[in-house]
Amino acid sequence: MTSVTVYGSGSWGTAYAAILADAGCSVTMWSRRAEVARAINEEHINSAYLPELVLPQRVRATDDPHEAGAGAEIVVLAVPSQTLRDNLVVWGDAIEGEAVVVSLMKGIELGTTKRMSQVIEEAGSVDPQRIVVVSGPNLAPEIAAKQPAAAVVASVGKNARAKVAEASATPYFRPYTNGDVIGTEIGGAVKNVIALAVGMAKGMGMGDNSMASLLTRGLAETARFGVRLGADPQTFLGLAGVGDMVATCASPLSRNNSFGFKLGQGMTLAEVVADTKQTAEGVKSCESILALARSVGADVPIVEAVEAVVHEGRDPKDLVSLLMTRALKHERS
Amino acid sequence: MTSVTVYGSGSWGTAYAAILADAGCSVTMWSRRAEVARAINEEHINSAYLPELVLPQRVRATDDPHEAGAGAEIVVLAVPSQTLRDNLVVWGDAIEGEAVVVSLMKGIELGTTKRMSQVIEEAGSVDPQRIVVVSGPNLAPEIAAKQPAAAVVASVGKNARAKVAEASATPYFRPYTNGDVIGTEIGGAVKNVIALAVGMAKGMGMGDNSMASLLTRGLAETARFGVRLGADPQTFLGLAGVGDMVATCASPLSRNNSFGFKLGQGMTLAEVVADTKQTAEGVKSCESILALARSVGADVPIVEAVEAVVHEGRDPKDLVSLLMTRALKHERS
Repeated sequence: MTSVTVYGSGSWGTAYAAILADAGCSVTMWSRRAEVARAINEEHINSAYLPELVLPQRVRATDDPHEAGAGAEIVVLAVPSQTLRDNLVVWGDAIEGEAVVVSLMKGIELGTTKRMSQVIEEAGSVDPQRIVVVSGPNLAPEIAAKQPAAAVVASVGKNARAKVAEASATPYFRPYTNGDVIGTEIGGAVKNVIALAVGMAKGMGMGDNSMASLLTRGLAETARFGVRLGADPQTFLGLAGVGDMVATCASPLSRNNSFGFKLGQGMTLAEVVADTKQTAEGVKSCESILALARSVGADVPIVEAVEAVVHEGRDPKDLVSLLMTRALKHERS
Repeated sequence: MTSVTVYGSGSWGTAYAAILADAGCSVTMWSRRAEVARAINEEHINSAYLPELVLPQRVRATDDPHEAGAGAEIVVLAVPSQTLRDNLVVWGDAIEGEAVVVSLMKGIELGTTKRMSQVIEEAGSVDPQRIVVVSGPNLAPEIAAKQPAAAVVASVGKNARAKVAEASATPYFRPYTNGDVIGTEIGGAVKNVIALAVGMAKGMGMGDNSMASLLTRGLAETARFGVRLGADPQTFLGLAGVGDMVATCASPLSRNNSFGFKLGQGMTLAEVVADTKQTAEGVKSCESILALARSVGADVPIVEAVEAVVHEGRDPKDLVSLLMTRALKHERS
């Protein structure tokens, strides 16, 4: 039985812990908050983040990071992306030397513009051969309901990705391996920003043609950007590209999508934050994504427009006119 | 002022006629039925197909194909795809020698497994340099409401595609040119079948992860298939690939999507046909698409499964288990 530790008890970390347990692993969750760990142990429920999921009995929890990590063959990191480095500095030594380290996080670090796997490599001193990124169309509440979904399990390390694919395969969750870590991470990070844009368009009353046109242009800019960083363009045609983007942009369960929707309806950023009591990942990361794109000379007009709306108070209406009024041109230019 | 004739008065032909008129063209529509032509001339409405659209005054209509074609610089074909050859045999000589010919049709001819542009070339004796295919996320009722949308205008002929892009550019409709006719046509034809599969999954109660996983696998099989025929894989990342597939699979306005939904809910094919009073394009064309794929050795498991459901009475549930239970593998294999 593979022994796995999941650091972080947000909705996706919790749903992934259930997948691992359903796939036959012995799972320990680490939660920063003792009361969450207690509720998981005693009631098998994480009521703050995924109350509809009853966790399998074999999922145990603790608030002690070293106790959590002891003996784990696979360590899954699912903390908020902007806190990853600090977390690793505090308890990164709890990760045992040969463990495979999985990132479920989708973001680009502010300030450094590093991808999550790069932060793990640097701050956790983990060999890239042992770092795996899981991404795809995986809305946590649907995973909790055991609805069929597929995902990408990406690593430059063949053994590492095969081990994680096997440890997380269940009848409702189907992992596909992939060697392109950069493309998988860029797809996951940028799609939150595109989902904000699509949400804004819907909030302004636009329909599925507009949504699909915007999503397609967003996918094209993500691919161009990723390729500049060394990604394989094919990745964006796959589950971590199109797949994740479609699920996020279609679903009312997506925080980025519904956050954008409210902006499109005319609410200010402060009003949306007050209304939803949280900030969507795309709002937090559009600044670092734009900085990374500029550093490699990638043209990302949708990311730029979203950044202008959320950080410079531009009107979301400008976003759409920007997209629809440029000169007629070839599709690939 | 560019003079354009649109043959066919279904919903997409009618919406495209309005785009052309809004872009400044002089437009004549041909309708097989005299009463439709009369209503367009007198009431500026095509009540059977797109009653919500009031056509611009400069759109005229006739039921005489030769009168319709006289003097047209651009001829748009928007008849039902399986009737195209017969139509061209009857009145194809109405197309003047130098006219650019545009296909709005998305299907593969039964029996011959030819794409629509190939049928135009053969039965209409038109040089491929003058044949243009228009495709993309273009649900007609949303175009009628002048919601922003983008489209691909594909031709091997540079002048022809540029002419059609310019003749159909409006503030709400943005054409992008593309040289890949094969990819554009395969994307448009196969997406109807994928939309049936996605509709079935939704009808069985599945959510957005399943929808997005199925759509992504469908896009991958469409791209593999298209590349075998000589398409550029990049086309499937664009508006005629992802864009059209996302709009069709997301929209309750799509006939294929809602037809599949009813099959997924447990209705038989005959019951759905009786309920909707029409057959979805994907039902009509999945047989010829499958035949074409087999003729070039392309593996199209979703098309195959849909064909088995609609023509061999297989249970739609088999479709999903087929997709979710194959061996763990690399994403691109």
